[in-house]
Amino acid sequence: MDGQVITQLAADVRTRVGCALEEFLADYTQVLRRVGDELADLDDVLETSVLGGGKRLRPQFAYWGARAAGAADDEALIRAAASLELLHAFALVHDDLMDASDTRRGRPSAHRVLEHQHRTVGWHGDAEHFGQSVAILLGDLLLVLSEQMLTTAGLPAAALERARAVSAGMRLELMAGQYLDIAAQARGTGSVGKALRIAQYKSGKYTVEAPLHLGGAVAGAPARITDAYTAFALPLGEAFQLRDDVLGVFGDCDLTGKPSGEDLREGKRTALVALALEKGTGPQRTRLEAGLGDPLLDTDGVQVLREILTDTGALATVETMIHERANRAAAVLDSAPLTQDGREALRDLAAASADRVS
Amino acid sequence: MDGQVITQLAADVRTRVGCALEEFLADYTQVLRRVGDELADLDDVLETSVLGGGKRLRPQFAYWGARAAGAADDEALIRAAASLELLHAFALVHDDLMDASDTRRGRPSAHRVLEHQHRTVGWHGDAEHFGQSVAILLGDLLLVLSEQMLTTAGLPAAALERARAVSAGMRLELMAGQYLDIAAQARGTGSVGKALRIAQYKSGKYTVEAPLHLGGAVAGAPARITDAYTAFALPLGEAFQLRDDVLGVFGDCDLTGKPSGEDLREGKRTALVALALEKGTGPQRTRLEAGLGDPLLDTDGVQVLREILTDTGALATVETMIHERANRAAAVLDSAPLTQDGREALRDLAAASADRVS
Repeated sequence: MDGQVITQLAADVRTRVGCALEEFLADYTQVLRRVGDELADLDDVLETSVLGGGKRLRPQFAYWGARAAGAADDEALIRAAASLELLHAFALVHDDLMDASDTRRGRPSAHRVLEHQHRTVGWHGDAEHFGQSVAILLGDLLLVLSEQMLTTAGLPAAALERARAVSAGMRLELMAGQYLDIAAQARGTGSVGKALRIAQYKSGKYTVEAPLHLGGAVAGAPARITDAYTAFALPLGEAFQLRDDVLGVFGDCDLTGKPSGEDLREGKRTALVALALEKGTGPQRTRLEAGLGDPLLDTDGVQVLREILTDTGALATVETMIHERANRAAAVLDSAPLTQDGREALRDLAAASADRVS
Repeated sequence: MDGQVITQLAADVRTRVGCALEEFLADYTQVLRRVGDELADLDDVLETSVLGGGKRLRPQFAYWGARAAGAADDEALIRAAASLELLHAFALVHDDLMDASDTRRGRPSAHRVLEHQHRTVGWHGDAEHFGQSVAILLGDLLLVLSEQMLTTAGLPAAALERARAVSAGMRLELMAGQYLDIAAQARGTGSVGKALRIAQYKSGKYTVEAPLHLGGAVAGAPARITDAYTAFALPLGEAFQLRDDVLGVFGDCDLTGKPSGEDLREGKRTALVALALEKGTGPQRTRLEAGLGDPLLDTDGVQVLREILTDTGALATVETMIHERANRAAAVLDSAPLTQDGREALRDLAAASADRVS
């Protein structure tokens, strides 16, 4: 199958995942509405959180993880894979609260939307607190809906049981990884090794490995396939996170939907930053440490820090690390016992993850 | 079986639930630790949230819901029932964030404990924000652990599948009910009918009906039993919530572990408050409206509002409503096809729920 057909297939999966999510949400907003009409307040923010953009990478990894291990294409698989997008929506809503981020995918983040809704209608109480409270609840709801979408996907009982075990482990690791991230910022320690370990749990396993394993579980894949998925996912997950770090500082606001340099203002201790602190001269280190986590950092301030990250060679090193890891991941696919279509789709997904611009 | 033996049995269930939770948490703190040593930061707050006090009402309703429908006593049932305590711990941690409550069961609430931990160790960043962020995460973790404890309880596959369906519905209703509560406060509308409907979802179904149904599902109970549980649970759930409303204003701080009059400061639109607003004279209503939601309300201010709630007859009406509902619930048990032990244990639990002082 040639590259263009595969790209078309990937686009189809993305579209089908989107439709499955739309249908599932439509059903569940009705279920919620039965409790009380007020629940309609959440319809818009629920829809935007789940359906508003997103690359659907995790559902695609899950889908192709099943297909590459020999599973047939069907709508139950699409729905099971799509459930990961609800888990991701949960993670983003709570993440934005924890990071106090005002935007997500170029729009106001959920808590800001809800805060604005409170102000517009002129409700009682503090609008900001309302926004935060309802966003906590919205995230909780998305987490429960994610499990519910997997449960009701229509998978055969044995496949569902295997998929659930993967899903349970995935959610625990996601939360544990999230805590490592918060703890690293609180402790203010940031070695390259630690940043990569956090990335391993928070992004690598969660974005690539666990979705692939979920797909493998649906297919009933043997250990030699799930082991290959792990070997593929670990370097690719790191590449993914390293790209994230680069985009968080150098990304184009129009493409990422995030204000330029947001990670610097948030003081994120990424591998990119850790490398610059290791390689920099005394004055460069001092300047970088002073700017990191400064919420008032303006465009010029961001530019100064970008130059330090470039001049110290940290950016070039990270780009090399990304490509070295993406190549290592691709090599695993070549020798793994996968279907031909699956192997090619996974190779495309890997390239899209490592080289993405948003 | 006489009353004393039943009380002993209930105490045994409570103890066994506590032990099951302790063992489960010990296992999972090890699982989390494997992700990173930093996860040990959460051990204490996780333990306190789950093991620190609590009446274990929901696990007891679930356990006796199964036994009264003919299930045998075993540890798998205890563990399945105990999983509801993790769900409850999740709800309390996020609830305290949404209500901005500083205390829970007479101790600082989870976000305050974490904030204090941040300050004591002298970590970077804003301690209050750290406390709130990690409490969001802690709640998420408890929600996932709750599902995990049910899944791994050791129930037979068919019983587990039935129990999971009940658990999924229960979690959705809990969150929907929580939103109704927040929305009612934001809208500032508070009829008696609306307060009872919120209570029905947020407390009634969640505290009594869903746990009973979960137990019934474990036992494979027929519809005439699960229908009886619903008929028992709805009035009892209302009685439970109405008692909660009374304790939130008139409760003894030493027993409830909450500052006296906390619900008034939070501006909770309970049935008690709604009744006083309906029955009061103009000046009483004005005074009550002015004090409700005033975070600076002191002991004297609380006393004034207590007198209004008493003088308007609202308190007496609520006490009558509680007993009328508790009696209606007890009458359902008499005519339901339950085991004798189960019926008596449920009757004791009903009385303990309606007349509790904490």
